[in-house]
Amino acid sequence: MSAASSAAPSASTVAAIREKARRLSILSMMATTAAGSGHPTSCMSAAELVAGLFFYAMKFDPKNPTSNDADRFVLSKGHAAPLLYAVLAEAGTFPESRVMTLRQFSSELEGHPTPRVPGVDAATGSLGQGLSVGVGLAIGARLDKSSTRVYVLLGDGEMAEGQVWEAAAFAGHYKFDNLTVIADVNALGQSAPTMYQHDMETYRRKFESCGWAADVIDGHDVPAVLAALDRAKATRGRPQAILARTVKGHGVSFVAGKENWHGKPIPKDQLDAALKELGGPITIASDAGNSYERKSLPKPPDFPAPAPPDYSDGKPVATREAYGYALKRLGKVNPHIVAISGDVKNSTFSEIFGDAFPDHFYQGYIAEQNLVSAGVGLAARGKVPFLDSFACFLSRAYDQVRMAAISRSNINLCGSHCGVSIGEDGPSQMALEDLAMFRAVHSSAVLYPSDAVSAERLTEAMARRAGINYLRTSRPKIPILYSSEEKFPIPGFKVLRQSAQDRATVIGAGVTLHEALKAAEQLKSQGIAVRVIDLYCVKPLDARAIAAQIATTGGRLITVEDHWPEGGIGEAVISALAQVGVAPAKFRMLAVTGMPHSGKPDELLDAFGISARHIADAVREIA
Amino acid sequence: MSAASSAAPSASTVAAIREKARRLSILSMMATTAAGSGHPTSCMSAAELVAGLFFYAMKFDPKNPTSNDADRFVLSKGHAAPLLYAVLAEAGTFPESRVMTLRQFSSELEGHPTPRVPGVDAATGSLGQGLSVGVGLAIGARLDKSSTRVYVLLGDGEMAEGQVWEAAAFAGHYKFDNLTVIADVNALGQSAPTMYQHDMETYRRKFESCGWAADVIDGHDVPAVLAALDRAKATRGRPQAILARTVKGHGVSFVAGKENWHGKPIPKDQLDAALKELGGPITIASDAGNSYERKSLPKPPDFPAPAPPDYSDGKPVATREAYGYALKRLGKVNPHIVAISGDVKNSTFSEIFGDAFPDHFYQGYIAEQNLVSAGVGLAARGKVPFLDSFACFLSRAYDQVRMAAISRSNINLCGSHCGVSIGEDGPSQMALEDLAMFRAVHSSAVLYPSDAVSAERLTEAMARRAGINYLRTSRPKIPILYSSEEKFPIPGFKVLRQSAQDRATVIGAGVTLHEALKAAEQLKSQGIAVRVIDLYCVKPLDARAIAAQIATTGGRLITVEDHWPEGGIGEAVISALAQVGVAPAKFRMLAVTGMPHSGKPDELLDAFGISARHIADAVREIA
Repeated sequence: MSAASSAAPSASTVAAIREKARRLSILSMMATTAAGSGHPTSCMSAAELVAGLFFYAMKFDPKNPTSNDADRFVLSKGHAAPLLYAVLAEAGTFPESRVMTLRQFSSELEGHPTPRVPGVDAATGSLGQGLSVGVGLAIGARLDKSSTRVYVLLGDGEMAEGQVWEAAAFAGHYKFDNLTVIADVNALGQSAPTMYQHDMETYRRKFESCGWAADVIDGHDVPAVLAALDRAKATRGRPQAILARTVKGHGVSFVAGKENWHGKPIPKDQLDAALKELGGPITIASDAGNSYERKSLPKPPDFPAPAPPDYSDGKPVATREAYGYALKRLGKVNPHIVAISGDVKNSTFSEIFGDAFPDHFYQGYIAEQNLVSAGVGLAARGKVPFLDSFACFLSRAYDQVRMAAISRSNINLCGSHCGVSIGEDGPSQMALEDLAMFRAVHSSAVLYPSDAVSAERLTEAMARRAGINYLRTSRPKIPILYSSEEKFPIPGFKVLRQSAQDRATVIGAGVTLHEALKAAEQLKSQGIAVRVIDLYCVKPLDARAIAAQIATTGGRLITVEDHWPEGGIGEAVISALAQVGVAPAKFRMLAVTGMPHSGKPDELLDAFGISARHIADAVREIA
Repeated sequence: MSAASSAAPSASTVAAIREKARRLSILSMMATTAAGSGHPTSCMSAAELVAGLFFYAMKFDPKNPTSNDADRFVLSKGHAAPLLYAVLAEAGTFPESRVMTLRQFSSELEGHPTPRVPGVDAATGSLGQGLSVGVGLAIGARLDKSSTRVYVLLGDGEMAEGQVWEAAAFAGHYKFDNLTVIADVNALGQSAPTMYQHDMETYRRKFESCGWAADVIDGHDVPAVLAALDRAKATRGRPQAILARTVKGHGVSFVAGKENWHGKPIPKDQLDAALKELGGPITIASDAGNSYERKSLPKPPDFPAPAPPDYSDGKPVATREAYGYALKRLGKVNPHIVAISGDVKNSTFSEIFGDAFPDHFYQGYIAEQNLVSAGVGLAARGKVPFLDSFACFLSRAYDQVRMAAISRSNINLCGSHCGVSIGEDGPSQMALEDLAMFRAVHSSAVLYPSDAVSAERLTEAMARRAGINYLRTSRPKIPILYSSEEKFPIPGFKVLRQSAQDRATVIGAGVTLHEALKAAEQLKSQGIAVRVIDLYCVKPLDARAIAAQIATTGGRLITVEDHWPEGGIGEAVISALAQVGVAPAKFRMLAVTGMPHSGKPDELLDAFGISARHIADAVREIA
């Protein structure tokens, strides 16, 4: 790193930081022993690092700790939550007494951090995700032309997660010099020593190979910590890693550096002895019971209506392509949109946006985990992230999506190339589980357009909706179904064919909706009328509205989907109906049941049971 | 690397390899142009590398290409499938004419490789997974004390995937010197140049930082390729990376090194010109239409019955702990079992097995993606992998599980700490989507034991069952329900409480089954009899047998699960019933609907609607 930009800190500063670190360790022990669970030793290894950060390096506003005008901190090693709560308390965000409510049912100070706690941008506790969140915050700061910095505390155990190296490579490539990692290398994982233990040079080589500045220090040597933080801040053109050799359980002889203390509080009868070694206990007022839960969480910013889509020429368009046009239209009216693509912008069509707004578009390379968690960081800074890959590859980031939901984050995901209708590329490229996956995400909307107009309108709806939004797009070009003025509320569906004579309801979406329309034509020629429903919103569902449709077609229902039978449209509909006390009189669920293989899209739709022929057969069976 | 172990190859050997490489490029182009899709340029960059591997370095048996007595090859960059098919054809596994059926509906030669093709151990095409498969094959070879080697061809685009670096770190740490990576660094991704383009030294630093020997060569220089393969083979104590600088589309001037040719065949009208540049075309007999689909896929080896579990002391035991005991019992009778834990062996209890069979246990560190794909490699060598982590963190490897299913692999996954019943650690550690996730996997069994006996018996069943097997274990200690002799067939369930007066059926599993039993006791005291079913097998389901139970309780059904409502027990049951034409007369689905937080397990079960109190209320509502 470059030379320090500031003079060495004074002896009194060093002493003050030492005192803060001591209090953080003591408070972490006291809170976890009171809770009867938690990870005090994982806090104690990082006490000097975090004290140095908050009370020396960071521009931090304790009363508005997630302000875009201040530096941001991400505790990637989320099990050190008590340390984070302790430092927020010491900084004045809430009283120390509140830390003693750790892990209680009624406390916002949970076992691992969530944005319920002021100062927490993203939930952590699934390891290896925090650096990607930091990357998203760093992108946001760069877009805002803000001089604020992002600090991420990593544990060494979590550096076995590949996502850490996706994020490190990404940050190095884009030269985010507003991003600093502090690695708490305490050499002990949960069940055993870490892979590299205290081999600090290996960590240095890893970060340097990703284009980072790297600095190895003793993480308990306060002057060394402060000097490293100064050097990091002064470094230009590269992110910086402060690799701190530490001792798990530092400061208390009978736990320090010892195995089998991970995730274990100091036993009640040993707490006094432990605190004494750190000159404790400290006096803490009893908790008044007040909640300090964060009142307002980020919401997607409002924006004026974009120009409507125009497909009046009537030519077939793939929904994946419409997604790109929609993003571009949105980009013109919403300056907060940022798109990242997992090296597939020419397949998902986010390149249409990227070409129009190059500063708001990032090539995410083939690294879906970093893609999603970076979105969480962007959203925490008030941006509106749109993240794309093939739908099947988003399954690689399911844990990251799950954590995004726990983060109460507002992220938008677009997965293209769903189902067997992609054809020749074969099953590795076919998403057949994405509806199941995204439905089982708290706060999610699962959207599945069947034409370009709805794809565009739903993309716009995503930009306005809080929570996890997923758009499933399709590879084939398909006919336009709707006029540009059509509205697509969430929840909702469209009835595309109906008559008083309808003998069954067929619910589909995407390619299967078009197969259903074909089947309806065939059946009509045979004198059988069927209702056809476009279920463009798979979650949430308006069960009563669907039930009303089915009731008028003799209770006969067919669902058809380019997805496994588990967790998709069929199960969503049948389960929603059951929960409002409705069951179809007769029911057929058409879905992909065998393992598909390569072939032409039409061959595959037919071979795997979801083509117009199968739909018509099912109608004739039950109607 | 160390000095070459063999003399330099003769000029005639070099010429023969060059000729093979030329034929591989030509065949890749011809096949993709005939198919009208595919990735010829991604094949052409690696033609010399693959020719050198198959016709110089590898001990390869074309008639038994996945023999444990021969070297193994994993094409991690699966989109270069035509190159793999071409080399298998050139080696004699099937005729060249068969390669011309690429991507056809009726051909086993799919767009991306699957084990339908002889010589393919694992499906690839979701990038960045092949090195982990190679790691599993390397573990297997080491366990077998076999001198065979494993070669993995990586693309440079996929090296952005963190999983590559999980696998590289793992292989370096365990010093797998029977493992060689050949990296085809052609500098062009799908949508744009790769992150590092031809910066070969960065790749060298990355591999070296993981403890590998690394060698940078010109990938089109045949003598250099062969020399590097010799050096790799002679290297002891470290895995080896041959980092080959290549040109995408090498050999054909109008595509070589050009952007916008990814995934595009040479147009028909330009094919002749392209082939001419490589001295082509070559003459290929017309295809006889014979399938060369692999006849037999690996099955889990049979083994004698282990000693029965013994919980006769009646003390409560967590199902996660029983899993560890079961693995140990199995280890005594099945020498093929290999367990890997994601640094949680002391939470999932695989340490019980690891302590008994240290050679068959690997610390997988915190890297779930590598964990799962390594299992696929192990299974391909006839091992029986048991892979464990917290259930929520298996969501990180969903893409790897999906690919394992496409690989027709036999892997066993154990996910512990499901649901809100884990308590104080909070939602980041609670699996609430794992049933949805694993149900939507082709060939999967989803098992969810409610006591130690069933946990042990189901673990044994997993070791015998082909496909993807998932065991959901729970954190709390729970009472023993079954005698050691009880059988647990797949599919199946147990009726634990029944009488002729039953007014409703309650289906639960894990902690909610025990809540249901408590509710049944409470209701009994109020004169309300209910049937209680232990759904230990969530997938597959015997819908008719469940329907018969519900029919005898007035069609009234309650499902209760420590899982989101989407894709779990409730949806599985209601959808299975609907598919056999049965609907409950009255139905209540109890599941976790709000975002949970920290608290005591009992507080959380009650707060999130799945405790005995809620079950009893639901029964009273509908019965």
